[in-house]
Amino acid sequence: MIAPFDDSFFMKKALQEAQYAFEQDEIPVGAIIVVKNRIIARAHNLTEKLNDVTAHAEMQAITAAANFLGGKYLRDCTLYVTLEPCQMCGGALFWSQISKIVFAASDPQRGIRAMGTHLHPKTEVVGGILEHEASDLLLRFFEKKRR
Amino acid sequence: MIAPFDDSFFMKKALQEAQYAFEQDEIPVGAIIVVKNRIIARAHNLTEKLNDVTAHAEMQAITAAANFLGGKYLRDCTLYVTLEPCQMCGGALFWSQISKIVFAASDPQRGIRAMGTHLHPKTEVVGGILEHEASDLLLRFFEKKRR
Repeated sequence: MIAPFDDSFFMKKALQEAQYAFEQDEIPVGAIIVVKNRIIARAHNLTEKLNDVTAHAEMQAITAAANFLGGKYLRDCTLYVTLEPCQMCGGALFWSQISKIVFAASDPQRGIRAMGTHLHPKTEVVGGILEHEASDLLLRFFEKKRR
Repeated sequence: MIAPFDDSFFMKKALQEAQYAFEQDEIPVGAIIVVKNRIIARAHNLTEKLNDVTAHAEMQAITAAANFLGGKYLRDCTLYVTLEPCQMCGGALFWSQISKIVFAASDPQRGIRAMGTHLHPKTEVVGGILEHEASDLLLRFFEKKRR
């Protein structure tokens, strides 16, 4: 059966957001939030432009999704994010009670698994969807910065 | 020697912010950020009003302080907050590289110590400043909600 709205489909949308961040000289991380196959929030990292450590893609997506839904809990939502969330974003996702988190590249230094961040017990986590594409974009960014 | 600008002095300002939250029917947590005895950010919890789990007092104070300073790092700053930060706020404080965190009441359920949240190695943490006043305000809030 053809499943047009699978995790890869939505992760590509998150990668598009990461590409926008790349083009603005931001660490290229993108995030979208989906409810019933509908994208209700799109965001990319803006920490440099906004001079704000809290402006991670996930944080903005959480705020935008809650605004769209008119409530602060994201219980039926899935977050697609191109890099494993950090403690801050994991902590926000904990409060949001989001149903599912799908990330692409792992962050073995600062990711929620390395840091031992607690998620909500009802939150499912899937990693590695389009990992290569997301990692490649990050590597290209840091290579560009070193030049 | 008289020290007008001690931790209690600034925590009273954070408690004033918590009181504003209380009056708006928000969980009463307040935060201020200080650099060289000057208050550069004041905030209180707005999660209900903004329908946004990320609208904790600390998060808003971090954003406001970075905006004031024109840079995203808070290396010479002290955060005064009336409740021990959660994972999300601790994670944001980690990224900010803040010098010092002073909190009033402990949060044995959701606080950074119970959750094992990692702070920046250069961040000093002091707890228990005006703990009774902050706890009392929280208790009064939850008693009011139960009625």
